[in-house]
Amino acid sequence: MMATNSCPVVTTFQWVPPFAQGLVRDLRVRWAIEEAGGDYDVAVVDFAQAKAPDYRRSQPFGQVPCFSDGEVEMFESGAIVLHIAERSRALLPIDTVGRNRAITWMFAALNSIEPMIGELATVDVFEKDAEWAKLRRPGLVEHIRKRLGDLAQWIGDKDYLEGEFTAGDLLMTTVLRNLRQTDLVAEQPKLAAYLARCEARPAFQRALAAQMEHFQKAA
Amino acid sequence: MMATNSCPVVTTFQWVPPFAQGLVRDLRVRWAIEEAGGDYDVAVVDFAQAKAPDYRRSQPFGQVPCFSDGEVEMFESGAIVLHIAERSRALLPIDTVGRNRAITWMFAALNSIEPMIGELATVDVFEKDAEWAKLRRPGLVEHIRKRLGDLAQWIGDKDYLEGEFTAGDLLMTTVLRNLRQTDLVAEQPKLAAYLARCEARPAFQRALAAQMEHFQKAA
Repeated sequence: MMATNSCPVVTTFQWVPPFAQGLVRDLRVRWAIEEAGGDYDVAVVDFAQAKAPDYRRSQPFGQVPCFSDGEVEMFESGAIVLHIAERSRALLPIDTVGRNRAITWMFAALNSIEPMIGELATVDVFEKDAEWAKLRRPGLVEHIRKRLGDLAQWIGDKDYLEGEFTAGDLLMTTVLRNLRQTDLVAEQPKLAAYLARCEARPAFQRALAAQMEHFQKAA
Repeated sequence: MMATNSCPVVTTFQWVPPFAQGLVRDLRVRWAIEEAGGDYDVAVVDFAQAKAPDYRRSQPFGQVPCFSDGEVEMFESGAIVLHIAERSRALLPIDTVGRNRAITWMFAALNSIEPMIGELATVDVFEKDAEWAKLRRPGLVEHIRKRLGDLAQWIGDKDYLEGEFTAGDLLMTTVLRNLRQTDLVAEQPKLAAYLARCEARPAFQRALAAQMEHFQKAA
């Protein structure tokens, strides 16, 4: 799986069900590479391979993506995006203040916003027929609504979280997209406009098209 | 709230209930500073202040910690730990490979392990009398048990996640401590030994004592 520095390798699943297509986390890495103006190859694992000891040596939890560029071998989409961002001004300002604000938002997306949204995916998709999921949903939705209100308040009239697009916006976009089965983003006009602005970026469109094409070919 | 570079300021709550004492996220930042051999001041907000617009300009979600060191103003404990780690070999190797492995584990702790453990805290503490929590618990525990098994398998006979202690171990320790109301870590001897090893570090003990002393004084 080693590659030269000029063409990193990103691992994704061979196929996922339609509800997950366009949301698999290799999208974050594809998008970061597209923003940075680079190229990449895709390596594929199926669900059985992802569970096997050989793959677990690269990814202990049997997930995607993994990443290698001839210099590093990594997993965790957030960490990989940071690694790519550190090599491109398109994703991370070079001044200390701007760099640290962008990194703050990278962690905020994955540690303060994504966990509750992931919980809702369990409720709405993976366990949707369970009694507990029906009972849990209203309180969880209220919790998410409040957090998204805080986020919309922060964004206000800014184009991006800190004015200019960074890797923080990239991760935040991919997190908010996991609410696409709900109206929770649409309820907050500033947040909906922000998400639409991020998704309209040509680099995002290329990354999304590449992931969708991959899964459609496999089907 | 500005401070000189020699003495950063970390924000915590004035007081939290006993179940949260020793787990509040400023612990991560205190510990990182202790590992790096630095000093810090503590700034305090109460729950009402944390909800007010003034504080929300520093922390959009009304949480702790915030951090300032005269150079940067940040929030998100993971991002702050990374900022401190970038200035200390005690927390982050300087070679590209080692650095990226450590950062991989920082994100793994907060994005692949903490979300399900946070969900269990909701079930066991915040919503423990709710019907949905009782119905949800067995499946969630099984999910966590499997993930911790993967982590224990990775650790094996290593002292730390990548051999030497890094900021990845620091964050992983603070995440695993959020299971203290359960036997889930004790069930995995390698993981229990790893957690005990991390918690035995003098820098951790100093950070924990400082947080506990702060909350006990406020009581």
